[in-house]
Amino acid sequence: MSTHSVSASTPASSVAEAPPASSADGAAPLSAVLQTAGRARVAADGIAPLPRAAKDAALLAVADALEARAAEAVAANAEDIARARAAGTSETVIDRLTLTPERIRAIAADVRHVAALPDPVGEVVRGSTLPNGIDLRQIRVPLGVVGIIYEARPNVTVDAAALCLKSGNAVLLRGSSSAYASNAALVEVVRDAVAGAGLPADSVQLVPGESRDSVRELMRARGLVDVLIPRGGASLIRTVVEESTVPVIETGTGNCHVYVDAETDLDMAVAILVNSKAQRPSVCNAAETLLVHRDTADAFLPRALDALAEAGVTVHGDERVRGYAEGSKATVLAATDEDWATEYLSYDIAAAVVDSLDDAVAHIRRWSSGHTEAIVTTSQSAARRFTRLVDSTTVAVNASTRFTDGGQFGFGAEIGISTQKLHARGPMGLPELTSTKYIVTGDGHTR
Amino acid sequence: MSTHSVSASTPASSVAEAPPASSADGAAPLSAVLQTAGRARVAADGIAPLPRAAKDAALLAVADALEARAAEAVAANAEDIARARAAGTSETVIDRLTLTPERIRAIAADVRHVAALPDPVGEVVRGSTLPNGIDLRQIRVPLGVVGIIYEARPNVTVDAAALCLKSGNAVLLRGSSSAYASNAALVEVVRDAVAGAGLPADSVQLVPGESRDSVRELMRARGLVDVLIPRGGASLIRTVVEESTVPVIETGTGNCHVYVDAETDLDMAVAILVNSKAQRPSVCNAAETLLVHRDTADAFLPRALDALAEAGVTVHGDERVRGYAEGSKATVLAATDEDWATEYLSYDIAAAVVDSLDDAVAHIRRWSSGHTEAIVTTSQSAARRFTRLVDSTTVAVNASTRFTDGGQFGFGAEIGISTQKLHARGPMGLPELTSTKYIVTGDGHTR
Repeated sequence: MSTHSVSASTPASSVAEAPPASSADGAAPLSAVLQTAGRARVAADGIAPLPRAAKDAALLAVADALEARAAEAVAANAEDIARARAAGTSETVIDRLTLTPERIRAIAADVRHVAALPDPVGEVVRGSTLPNGIDLRQIRVPLGVVGIIYEARPNVTVDAAALCLKSGNAVLLRGSSSAYASNAALVEVVRDAVAGAGLPADSVQLVPGESRDSVRELMRARGLVDVLIPRGGASLIRTVVEESTVPVIETGTGNCHVYVDAETDLDMAVAILVNSKAQRPSVCNAAETLLVHRDTADAFLPRALDALAEAGVTVHGDERVRGYAEGSKATVLAATDEDWATEYLSYDIAAAVVDSLDDAVAHIRRWSSGHTEAIVTTSQSAARRFTRLVDSTTVAVNASTRFTDGGQFGFGAEIGISTQKLHARGPMGLPELTSTKYIVTGDGHTR
Repeated sequence: MSTHSVSASTPASSVAEAPPASSADGAAPLSAVLQTAGRARVAADGIAPLPRAAKDAALLAVADALEARAAEAVAANAEDIARARAAGTSETVIDRLTLTPERIRAIAADVRHVAALPDPVGEVVRGSTLPNGIDLRQIRVPLGVVGIIYEARPNVTVDAAALCLKSGNAVLLRGSSSAYASNAALVEVVRDAVAGAGLPADSVQLVPGESRDSVRELMRARGLVDVLIPRGGASLIRTVVEESTVPVIETGTGNCHVYVDAETDLDMAVAILVNSKAQRPSVCNAAETLLVHRDTADAFLPRALDALAEAGVTVHGDERVRGYAEGSKATVLAATDEDWATEYLSYDIAAAVVDSLDDAVAHIRRWSSGHTEAIVTTSQSAARRFTRLVDSTTVAVNASTRFTDGGQFGFGAEIGISTQKLHARGPMGLPELTSTKYIVTGDGHTR
């Protein structure tokens, strides 16, 4: 049977005729989530073939509308903030949740920036003329319906919608319930602008419902939803990866390592370590573990511990690292196996001394989430061996782990950082929101 | 937590220390399947960094060993055949199962052909120097551990092993229980040759156990197995797609369409239709449904029905097609919705008259499995509209559906035909058995 059997006629009737098998698992066949997904399926077929000009016009209309109707979003946001305050939410989280006219202008500017990026759809990935004269082309096409499950910041709502529209996909947005009013207001502005530009409003939809059940239904909507991208905490991502029958792109968990080699530039190593850990500790490309070659420990660790202490970082060290604590400014706690596995996302770092580059690689293989690992070395052969043996989305040589980022990589935009091996790995830009198809052109060719 | 946390030390102890969460669902933590997968994980780390020369030498040793030890495989195969005969298996299936010295020579030749193909690993997919002077390269790397679940033909065993080895992956082979003795004999020859060439023997392993339970365990071995590729019948593929927590590449179901446009070359249309349907009806790129524009039905259908009848094809037609049955040589049965959904894989074809190209597209969207659809037209605008609106792995213009094939596309080899949108779509060659990683090289760069 077709995975697209429900995409033919109007969404409501087709969902009624051919609900996905999984709708039998407790959810009503015509649940609000499945109806929304059915409408997205139809909208996806509508926007997939559109040329760049139509999509860019819609994006520019969205940017203008966001600025013109900023007051609506700010008013809705005030409701979310009042609820969050009443629930005793921390000021850090409330700050992330907050929309101001300035922030909305910045969001609109991001949308205009996405409009200015090249359209990935239609790009010829490979092409050749076969020996029999057939012309073969592999071209990029939209994925179809993309579901994004995310937390906290309402700017992701507009960001994700803009990237999906630009790449010809319909998007289902499932944000945090704490930002529901803000997200609803933003999506209404986006949909009005999209419809005003002549595109299907259902290209952009908020998934109805604030409970976890709506996430569960989305994960079971195979055939209606082409891919789910969870963005957020490790537990959200693990749940989606394990329970979804819709294909998933796993994102963001970053237990990143900095390895300081036997042959190294000490000043460079200290600078890269401190930058990787402390420049912005709350993000996935921040370093969480330091590994130091034993031959460089005496010269490096006293300086490193002081520099970390000055940056406000607490060290969780193995026995050998703790041997350097005395006389240092640093707080050095005893590390356990849990520390090697932890993505602190805070001013904390685990640290160990290793006997060789290969031992560093073994530690990374065992504990890393496969996001980003850096080596600081003056040795060309060590750099080559480390980059060959370490299997993570990004391996940095004499550079901070913080460079693993779609903006830094020059992609112009980023929908997330994939830590899986299928489809996309590392920062995902617009091309990663596409699939491909082959066009075979002949003159009556048969076999 | 790392998805690779079990890959660090020896396989048995690491599986014991950190069994995948799913091993709690009834299977013993140290089951034979998980131990096998653990050994594959270790072998994968061993072969991933190997240069092409080492892998090619192993492949050539495999080819030589297959020929030298052909008698062992033929003897084991005789056991499988005797069992199949006793079970009343059809001669067609027994023919597919049979190994002869000639067939083994052909398999060995295929392995030598794979050795001669370019190594996808290390290919620079994109590269640039960033504005800050950092050198960025995205390179192909092996996926890691690839599980192949397949039916019947034992040649797939060697084929899949060769493609995985060439692309630096360890492979777990789960063939049909009816070919167990043949597969075991072939895998023993391959492993001995691989080990003799200095590569880890566990790069190639048969999944132990002949029951469905071993498939189920494989599907739950997330963290040990990087991707599962089911090759075989629709029900096997559906089960794997729905139940696996390991990422899956869906392959092979082909409900393919031939659409004959209002403006068309009738001779060409007849030739493409008959070739698409009848040149080899049992394969996934054979056509299963004919759609004819109403304006061309009078001229085309009488000729088409006769040509199909001469090729031995039974037609399952809608009411309008049945109107042309009288006076034709063809058997035209009444089609139901089930016919639109059926992948016959036999000398049968469903047929309908449509009112427009867009109606043909709507029919395809509703019923196609998204494998291959062909249009036969003399109109440039019809060809453009059809290729833009039809979203299948392959869209053929004035060419048979039978060209959707890795060999035909010039890939030199094929591990299957993906009908999903993530990672790979259409015929999969060696590059589709890889992931990528980014290498960031600086001179002490920080943010």
